[in-house]
Amino acid sequence: MVTREEVMFFDTDCGGVVHNLAYLRMIETCRTRLAATLGMDLVGMTQSMLFPVLTRTEVDYRRPAKLGDWLEIRGWLGEVGSVRFWCGFEIRRESDRELMVTAKQALAVVKMPEGKPQRLSFTE
Amino acid sequence: MVTREEVMFFDTDCGGVVHNLAYLRMIETCRTRLAATLGMDLVGMTQSMLFPVLTRTEVDYRRPAKLGDWLEIRGWLGEVGSVRFWCGFEIRRESDRELMVTAKQALAVVKMPEGKPQRLSFTE
Amino acid sequence: MVTREEVMFFDTDCGGVVHNLAYLRMIETCRTRLAATLGMDLVGMTQSMLFPVLTRTEVDYRRPAKLGDWLEIRGWLGEVGSVRFWCGFEIRRESDRELMVTAKQALAVVKMPEGKPQRLSFTE
Amino acid sequence: MVTREEVMFFDTDCGGVVHNLAYLRMIETCRTRLAATLGMDLVGMTQSMLFPVLTRTEVDYRRPAKLGDWLEIRGWLGEVGSVRFWCGFEIRRESDRELMVTAKQALAVVKMPEGKPQRLSFTE
Repeated sequence: MVTREEVMFFDTDCGGVVHNLAYLRMIETCRTRLAATLGMDLVGMTQSMLFPVLTRTEVDYRRPAKLGDWLEIRGWLGEVGSVRFWCGFEIRRESDRELMVTAKQALAVVKMPEGKPQRLSFTE
Repeated sequence: MVTREEVMFFDTDCGGVVHNLAYLRMIETCRTRLAATLGMDLVGMTQSMLFPVLTRTEVDYRRPAKLGDWLEIRGWLGEVGSVRFWCGFEIRRESDRELMVTAKQALAVVKMPEGKPQRLSFTE
Repeated sequence: MVTREEVMFFDTDCGGVVHNLAYLRMIETCRTRLAATLGMDLVGMTQSMLFPVLTRTEVDYRRPAKLGDWLEIRGWLGEVGSVRFWCGFEIRRESDRELMVTAKQALAVVKMPEGKPQRLSFTE
Repeated sequence: MVTREEVMFFDTDCGGVVHNLAYLRMIETCRTRLAATLGMDLVGMTQSMLFPVLTRTEVDYRRPAKLGDWLEIRGWLGEVGSVRFWCGFEIRRESDRELMVTAKQALAVVKMPEGKPQRLSFTE
């Protein structure tokens, strides 16, 4: 799954570069679109109240993006366990393909609002 | 109700000043504490699913706050109608009492998730 | 200018609907793209340090959007004064064209970080 | 360094619990206060343009916090290298001392906007 984002003012801070929280928001958009391709779309989740929840995030901030940069966020499904699965992410600046951020996230699917984890069975 | 906030990196943008969204987040914290003094506390709302929802916001951005400024947010209950009430807000920089932002917000109390507005009866 | 957004988890709150700050973030994206068509693109602004800054926002929240809704944000240039101009915005749900949010914002163009307002001259 | 936060609507999402981005915002506030005690205060940074920037974040989301919970964020300085240092964080719910989130972040001190890393010398 590949999504694109143009860096807006609200993504930056007074250091002149993109704030670390903004990358994780961009990654969530990519992850949500990736989940939809795996059978977990947003509207369906609202009805079933089965939501993917993060259990772990690892992010490496490699190069700072700037206002007006176009970023490409690439996400993929990694290792799948019985109750937890991993996604991987790369954010690159489109103009020169520089790698800005890499990340891994572990998720579980839980029944909300109880928070009960479900056994995983992806439709691939 | 008076709340205080120290301007953090996540409040600023690459123009070097506080981003407009950050002031509204600070105002929400002040408004939430104000609501609690009027009988609408957060934990109670989660149980009753009666939530105050914004129907209108007016904000004037007068002077730009900067990283590390301490801001004082003052909020008060204004006019109360049958289904809508107004709150007023002022944000001042503590160091020199300069007025940075003024705002007014109209709210209704609605039963969620249906979104049904309730008749107002404040315990004053 | 028309932009589109799919409502993500980070746009919502525990009332089950889109949080008011999220609409203003969506409006900023639309406003930024609108500004680019008027000769103020993001990369150019970073070089000239001439930034459009908000002086006033008025928002009416009419109907609550939900997770997974696709929203259309339409923005246009309104009245232009000597140092301040107005933009108008409408947010509609794509599925049924319902009007969710209307907004008006006044902006000035200022030289940052001094904050000095500039006389306006749009290239139309 | 210990900071406190009351969970607000803007911290939550429609799953009914705190959104993952909100914890990292709370951690930034704690980290900023911690940095001030180590000789890096916000106002001083704005003048020197020497900013701490994140190079890596690891977060484990252990239990979901809810609207109205009071959270305690504890941060401490961990291992210090020649150009990178680590901070550790724990977020607990005050009512029952439950551990909600643990995190580690690696930072470098860089001269902005060039992004040049500086050799570390903490005043302890």
